[in-house]
Amino acid sequence: MSWQEKDNKLTKTFEFKDFTEAFVFMTRVAFIAEKADHHPEWSNVYNKVKIELCTHDAGSKITDKDRKMAAEIDNI
Amino acid sequence: MSWQEKDNKLTKTFEFKDFTEAFVFMTRVAFIAEKADHHPEWSNVYNKVKIELCTHDAGSKITDKDRKMAAEIDNI
Amino acid sequence: MSWQEKDNKLTKTFEFKDFTEAFVFMTRVAFIAEKADHHPEWSNVYNKVKIELCTHDAGSKITDKDRKMAAEIDNI
Amino acid sequence: MSWQEKDNKLTKTFEFKDFTEAFVFMTRVAFIAEKADHHPEWSNVYNKVKIELCTHDAGSKITDKDRKMAAEIDNI
Repeated sequence: MSWQEKDNKLTKTFEFKDFTEAFVFMTRVAFIAEKADHHPEWSNVYNKVKIELCTHDAGSKITDKDRKMAAEIDNI
Repeated sequence: MSWQEKDNKLTKTFEFKDFTEAFVFMTRVAFIAEKADHHPEWSNVYNKVKIELCTHDAGSKITDKDRKMAAEIDNI
Repeated sequence: MSWQEKDNKLTKTFEFKDFTEAFVFMTRVAFIAEKADHHPEWSNVYNKVKIELCTHDAGSKITDKDRKMAAEIDNI
Repeated sequence: MSWQEKDNKLTKTFEFKDFTEAFVFMTRVAFIAEKADHHPEWSNVYNKVKIELCTHDAGSKITDKDRKMAAEIDNI
């Protein structure tokens, strides 16, 4: 499944075997986010992680920063 | 601030200095959750972490399991 | 490569692409360890993680607890 | 306790309540390390974390990079 554009955000939901796998994925995303100094809006319930990306500094629109991070996350 | 009861969920938002501090807090909560085999609905944006607790097995109501986890999280 | 038995410990060194990948692996192992209440002696330098397993309660010998954890770690 | 200089490394051992607290501390250090692109040699056994800092690019000596990271870790 690919990222959806909705309400000026890039959105994707990832599903894992269990909570631990989901959280380990989140840890990896956290390192990507911290390195890029670009942070997602995201939520987790058990084995599901929903990520929303937009650039607040650019008026909360989708920018290349978001597309780059989406590609990096897909690359995990 | 204390936990709020809303829509059959215990809810609280935590605020930190920055993203790293917020994520490190989430890591600690993740260990508590995994140990109790009881997992929150939670979301993070930069330095804020919103946690919602309810017991799905009990018909998505607040139970002692949630109150116990809320106390453990406050204890961090 | 398989686990080595040395000095009454099961030992294996894992290598990753970079530090982040190594640390994400460690996070997954940490959850396994915490769940089993059985904790490794381990060290990390950049992209390498060395894990040593033995059971202190059994006189610092290799037990089934260690073999089980070794299998779980290989399963990641 | 302060950092010790030994064998051209800055060394310090941290002790925590339990494994989870130790690993959460390691997570925080991992973010500091990744941000600085300067990574420790470190080991963990249950509630203890031993950190060794030196700069490999400078001939495995202690440099300002190490002193800065030591200060940041103490600051946690």
